[in-house]
Amino acid sequence: MTDIILIGCNGRMGQMITDIVAKDEEARIVAGIDPFTGKEQEYPVFASLKECDVKADAMIDFSSAVGVEERIDYAIKKQIPLVECSTGLSKEQTDYLLDAGKKVAILRSANMSVGVNLLIKLLKEASQKLASEGFDIEIVEKHHNQKLDAPSGTALALADAINEANDEQYEYVYDRSQVRQKRGNKELGISAVRGGTIVGDHDVIFAGEDEVVTFSHRAYSRAVFAKGSVVAAKYMKGKGAGLYDMADVLL
Amino acid sequence: MTDIILIGCNGRMGQMITDIVAKDEEARIVAGIDPFTGKEQEYPVFASLKECDVKADAMIDFSSAVGVEERIDYAIKKQIPLVECSTGLSKEQTDYLLDAGKKVAILRSANMSVGVNLLIKLLKEASQKLASEGFDIEIVEKHHNQKLDAPSGTALALADAINEANDEQYEYVYDRSQVRQKRGNKELGISAVRGGTIVGDHDVIFAGEDEVVTFSHRAYSRAVFAKGSVVAAKYMKGKGAGLYDMADVLL
Amino acid sequence: MTDIILIGCNGRMGQMITDIVAKDEEARIVAGIDPFTGKEQEYPVFASLKECDVKADAMIDFSSAVGVEERIDYAIKKQIPLVECSTGLSKEQTDYLLDAGKKVAILRSANMSVGVNLLIKLLKEASQKLASEGFDIEIVEKHHNQKLDAPSGTALALADAINEANDEQYEYVYDRSQVRQKRGNKELGISAVRGGTIVGDHDVIFAGEDEVVTFSHRAYSRAVFAKGSVVAAKYMKGKGAGLYDMADVLL
Amino acid sequence: MTDIILIGCNGRMGQMITDIVAKDEEARIVAGIDPFTGKEQEYPVFASLKECDVKADAMIDFSSAVGVEERIDYAIKKQIPLVECSTGLSKEQTDYLLDAGKKVAILRSANMSVGVNLLIKLLKEASQKLASEGFDIEIVEKHHNQKLDAPSGTALALADAINEANDEQYEYVYDRSQVRQKRGNKELGISAVRGGTIVGDHDVIFAGEDEVVTFSHRAYSRAVFAKGSVVAAKYMKGKGAGLYDMADVLL
Repeated sequence: MTDIILIGCNGRMGQMITDIVAKDEEARIVAGIDPFTGKEQEYPVFASLKECDVKADAMIDFSSAVGVEERIDYAIKKQIPLVECSTGLSKEQTDYLLDAGKKVAILRSANMSVGVNLLIKLLKEASQKLASEGFDIEIVEKHHNQKLDAPSGTALALADAINEANDEQYEYVYDRSQVRQKRGNKELGISAVRGGTIVGDHDVIFAGEDEVVTFSHRAYSRAVFAKGSVVAAKYMKGKGAGLYDMADVLL
Repeated sequence: MTDIILIGCNGRMGQMITDIVAKDEEARIVAGIDPFTGKEQEYPVFASLKECDVKADAMIDFSSAVGVEERIDYAIKKQIPLVECSTGLSKEQTDYLLDAGKKVAILRSANMSVGVNLLIKLLKEASQKLASEGFDIEIVEKHHNQKLDAPSGTALALADAINEANDEQYEYVYDRSQVRQKRGNKELGISAVRGGTIVGDHDVIFAGEDEVVTFSHRAYSRAVFAKGSVVAAKYMKGKGAGLYDMADVLL
Repeated sequence: MTDIILIGCNGRMGQMITDIVAKDEEARIVAGIDPFTGKEQEYPVFASLKECDVKADAMIDFSSAVGVEERIDYAIKKQIPLVECSTGLSKEQTDYLLDAGKKVAILRSANMSVGVNLLIKLLKEASQKLASEGFDIEIVEKHHNQKLDAPSGTALALADAINEANDEQYEYVYDRSQVRQKRGNKELGISAVRGGTIVGDHDVIFAGEDEVVTFSHRAYSRAVFAKGSVVAAKYMKGKGAGLYDMADVLL
Repeated sequence: MTDIILIGCNGRMGQMITDIVAKDEEARIVAGIDPFTGKEQEYPVFASLKECDVKADAMIDFSSAVGVEERIDYAIKKQIPLVECSTGLSKEQTDYLLDAGKKVAILRSANMSVGVNLLIKLLKEASQKLASEGFDIEIVEKHHNQKLDAPSGTALALADAINEANDEQYEYVYDRSQVRQKRGNKELGISAVRGGTIVGDHDVIFAGEDEVVTFSHRAYSRAVFAKGSVVAAKYMKGKGAGLYDMADVLL
């Protein structure tokens, strides 16, 4: 049994996680944290971590970038592994999180789904081979019209995986409308489409001579991310200090 | 029978048109123009239009932007309808061409294929309805790595058709990586993917609440453009001064 | 204000409709019907229509094919317009429903979404033009692994719309693995893909010489169907006997 | 330098190979075989292999299933490695070919392109992981309207690669229109779309809970197969008896 503290329990993702854990015989939520405490849950809800002194095996944080340092400090102090799923962390916050990995178990992934993380793994191998055969690489991602950042963290994680596997030879290109020139073979174009309520589509395109290979992932619901965070929390129980990601969990 | 003067006859597109017309019982090429005269054709080839005094019902120009004014002047002087398919015309050259429509029949389309021109027509109707229901509109186009301009002329023609049908309310957006904000509902994003030898893919995406409608066109070979130019030349025979496009021909 | 009786109120679709109407100022649910009455709703719930004597402007039926005749009879007797969304009706049940249109207002569509119904309308025009230019037509639909019928009712509705617009010239083909022959030009292939929790994807493919035009619809959540049924119920208030479909509502 | 005998040299694929080899400094065609000898080539053309006594390092056969046994016998007798690309071989012919691998070097692949063969390799790994996570697997292939067989040999090769990697647990399903039942989790659906001049599209779809991963390959021209056969011929020079496929060549 994995005992979980759920930060952001009354938000949209928090509710999904609550529902998923309710059906999971190997996990339970022992405390929720949310400044909006009005909602009734089957577990105690605290307005902030400071008020919470519940023992747990793992924490899932699906709240927001604001105040993430405080949650990280709590994880270190209490020595509870942290699955950090908040998006939009600044460079400083990300560094703070990565540094915390020296003192407690931290799991951080751009995307919590099984599919995307498998894709990241496969792309390392596939991109080496296809790049050596002269294929050009481009990424197109699509998200809902409320998303603030572009391109998505997942698109960048896919690009980074490819770039690492290919001696960091690629330069990311986000806009071609301002120049009038042929594509360089060290470019890796990333296009961001925004509209409606699209949950998250990612296409990694390898375009060669008279043939194109495409690796696509489509999320139909944010439940895939909620589900992934619970799988991760169970994996993190008992883990020592260090940085983990979904690839460790899944593969 | 439509007698055609083919400008750029020894280039890649010129050869395709030559092959298509050879199998067409209602058209024949009576003269070709190409500075590279080394190639043998079954019709006389002249290094420039100045040297050509062959009677014809239509001209197809698939050469280049350079010197297009001279070809336009020739069409006016000889009163031969002109199907102008060269790409990358400057603003001045385009104006020159449109102005020539007062004196001779000029056909100009961003894309010569049946499929794209049908799409343009359908989008006028569909975009009004979907926009009024709150759908966001985005375009993604994909072309080969030798293409100089981005986005493609066809993508812009699709966007313009949508914008005209919707009171010119949309602003085209080519890059979202430099801002951190939600999508505005008057944005129309256009993304350009470049790679390999992709002939030309265009996706027009309508993203609504929990549903997405996409209109796609894919060209597998430049032969679709060659074929379209021949259909257009036959249509233009005998036409009086004016501006025409593929929608007139096909629909 | 439109007063609605919701049949199947405690099912998955029923709950979605309940949530949507709760936020709609122009509609309210005045009674729910469901044999599983355990769930609490903010409106009275009856185990069957027989027990219900609530006045209403429209009925939405998202229950099942079983016993649909009884619900139709109730609509006729009470003269309440019926939005019939149950799937998998037999030929006899469908005939019974259509016949009821002589006595009360009946709305029946294979798919309740805005996007699909717009597509059906556009396809009538587009398919005539593309068929006359020699394009072959194929449909691919994708649904979740719990769906019983194949192809989907929506795929058949798309095919029927195309066939009606083209003098019923097409024969539907569901399997090509048993023959070894070229495709006939009067075939209209329909492929059914099943897997995971896919809500409903439909691609209508027009394949020509070196070009392909595709019209796609993707549903991300069944909420699009729930939403459509509420829009339909509001439209049906006060309508006289007759057969209606979503095209009447939306277009 | 690899000396090649090209069987079917005057057909469409033969001409493509001739053009590709003409630009390749490491290979040359030393003889062509084609019953239609009317066409002029820069190498001697024989009506049948019987008349040919030219020394060579490899043979490429892109003719037809008819008489393939004779070509195989020739390869054995002359001890020339054979790249066998004819499609539509019967079960008996395929067995004959595989058996010949005991006596001479034989290369046989369902598809000669770089992209498809890389996909086959990746799918072995990916399908194990995704299947163990509960993803359903489906394949959709699209080809031109002149193709006789369905599904394509490439689709079957993709399915076989998946099935081999998963303990042969899957049953291929080609048609779901005749039954009314849920999808079994040991089904692997294969759909064949036919239309226009589509060269060859293959989508391998992994559909899970709220997410879908798709691996796609699209050929834009048969030149990818011609190119692959030349790469294969160069690889096969000097190889001893045995069965080879494109995975050996490329990966």
